[in-house]
Amino acid sequence: MQQTEHLDLALEAIERVRTDGAHLHSITNTVAQNFTANVLLACGISVSMTINPDEIADFASFAGAFHINLGTLDQERIAACLMAVRTCSQDGKPLLLDPVKVDISKRRLSFARELLPQMSVIRANSAENVALDLGQSQACLVVTGKTDVIRHEDKLVAVNNGDPIMDRVIATGCAQGALIAGLCSVVSEPFHAALAGSLWFSIAGEVAAANSIGPGSFPVAFLDALHTISTDTIRNQARLS
Amino acid sequence: MQQTEHLDLALEAIERVRTDGAHLHSITNTVAQNFTANVLLACGISVSMTINPDEIADFASFAGAFHINLGTLDQERIAACLMAVRTCSQDGKPLLLDPVKVDISKRRLSFARELLPQMSVIRANSAENVALDLGQSQACLVVTGKTDVIRHEDKLVAVNNGDPIMDRVIATGCAQGALIAGLCSVVSEPFHAALAGSLWFSIAGEVAAANSIGPGSFPVAFLDALHTISTDTIRNQARLS
Amino acid sequence: MQQTEHLDLALEAIERVRTDGAHLHSITNTVAQNFTANVLLACGISVSMTINPDEIADFASFAGAFHINLGTLDQERIAACLMAVRTCSQDGKPLLLDPVKVDISKRRLSFARELLPQMSVIRANSAENVALDLGQSQACLVVTGKTDVIRHEDKLVAVNNGDPIMDRVIATGCAQGALIAGLCSVVSEPFHAALAGSLWFSIAGEVAAANSIGPGSFPVAFLDALHTISTDTIRNQARLS
Repeated sequence: MQQTEHLDLALEAIERVRTDGAHLHSITNTVAQNFTANVLLACGISVSMTINPDEIADFASFAGAFHINLGTLDQERIAACLMAVRTCSQDGKPLLLDPVKVDISKRRLSFARELLPQMSVIRANSAENVALDLGQSQACLVVTGKTDVIRHEDKLVAVNNGDPIMDRVIATGCAQGALIAGLCSVVSEPFHAALAGSLWFSIAGEVAAANSIGPGSFPVAFLDALHTISTDTIRNQARLS
Repeated sequence: MQQTEHLDLALEAIERVRTDGAHLHSITNTVAQNFTANVLLACGISVSMTINPDEIADFASFAGAFHINLGTLDQERIAACLMAVRTCSQDGKPLLLDPVKVDISKRRLSFARELLPQMSVIRANSAENVALDLGQSQACLVVTGKTDVIRHEDKLVAVNNGDPIMDRVIATGCAQGALIAGLCSVVSEPFHAALAGSLWFSIAGEVAAANSIGPGSFPVAFLDALHTISTDTIRNQARLS
Repeated sequence: MQQTEHLDLALEAIERVRTDGAHLHSITNTVAQNFTANVLLACGISVSMTINPDEIADFASFAGAFHINLGTLDQERIAACLMAVRTCSQDGKPLLLDPVKVDISKRRLSFARELLPQMSVIRANSAENVALDLGQSQACLVVTGKTDVIRHEDKLVAVNNGDPIMDRVIATGCAQGALIAGLCSVVSEPFHAALAGSLWFSIAGEVAAANSIGPGSFPVAFLDALHTISTDTIRNQARLS
């Protein structure tokens, strides 16, 4: 399959989630929750975020996909993640892992290793990628940075979009992972959800950077751009390699 | 009492909280905390949000009203809610419950049922209203949606204000519940706090929608509007039925 | 040392953190986390915020300074604070305490007293200052309010900057404490970190107040101002006494 065919399928996923909606359950860190939820809603995806293990099964069965982000990994979140893996594996529901800062915390690194085999998609930065040795994983892999590299089975694409101001706003990476997870519920292959999420996020970031003057006005313009940007604009600005 | 008399009392409550201030203690979900606190402060209400059961009694005695929102209902929040109900019931302090997503979680539904008899006000969307069968409750009931319906004893009013963009910003409903709770400490009947909170929130939403272009610029304009909107504007734009 | 020499050292600290960066670990309340992280990033300081006691030592060893804010002080945060004090004391790493609302909660007041002897810097408002009798402490003391008063050993300065709108936005005080903590890792004396953080924060607040119309547009303009304000502007607008 050519990059242009992958691009077509990614843009279709964006149109589909805007038209039909989707529901994601996200276990994510307390720092990122509000911004992540607003990114998802701007894209047409509703979200629930409970971390109570007693409630995970009910919320998972209501969701089209599941997102686990290991930031602020307190004791109750650990139990919730284990419950999520059990429930989603039984139901064959897409599960995305964002192993935040496993390069710093030994405890978290070993917990991430425990979760890895059940994952459909893993989003990591390059330090987390190295710490977990993700090259071995069978999952769809998204390594984000100045360039986002997406790889699954024999498919590979790099997205060369985005703006450096995005690193000055907390939880942009976390929110991008959640968006990719949400898109997993409207595609047949997670690779196209990853490509769609990477393009939508980074090109809306370019639009917002052009319409803002610093890290306060950027997220305002960014949420507006996620909501209003057309798939034609995304197609025209996409720099794939 | 006529709708215009109810409206007068609601607008008086808004003026009073702006002039005299109020303090609310809110046990709310981690996703909504920051936005909820900013909505309250924009309206002149200060807020504390601890969920440690050992501290609830001290904070409750400092507050004019108490707010319980069942989102992200972890184990410590459950214990805090029970402590809040005990403390507020003893002191006759107004207590508002927002039974978030009890239509999805069985565990949460049964917990909400346990709390219901002690509540002064309940804010719910229509799915939560049905799940809890709130028609039976003696509390002041606020069912929010495109139209907010407020009912207590023989009093009934519908507020036909607001803007659809509010559904694209996380925690707007949660923050509205907290605002109504805060207003309870400056009225003699919770019905007028509910009407005041519904009008203030939804008409500021209309003003903000006219001054913004998407879900990023909307909350910025909304907090500004809550702070600056006059009660004359609220009176003129109110669509009661 | 004269106030102008203190001012020079404070402005050098601002330049240094912008050029070289710094990393802070912050145990802070869930209400303030997102805004605090964005304030820090706007200033060039990266931050981690886990509260899992099993991870505190790993994150502390990665950080140049440590910040403890007692808001939303749940059980796991209490354990994390104790672990932080042990780790930072061993390593001689600067530790800042923000004893939020110890004037209201007896439980929190006694916990703050337990932590006090190990602190390098304490930031408090006047009610918290009185409740803890901070005049006795050997730490660098920052009492914030309309005027910020900073005292350590024989050094004393008052910063008469800021704008009242800052009280209408949640977590401004919490974020200021975190900024001072972050600056501690690039100075030889915490007094100059405190002065730098107080000036940077309150003068960016004045700039933002002039560029905004209410509590929604203020934080947007404030984060932009923190990022873009020059040390020349800070020097020119500083009102020290």
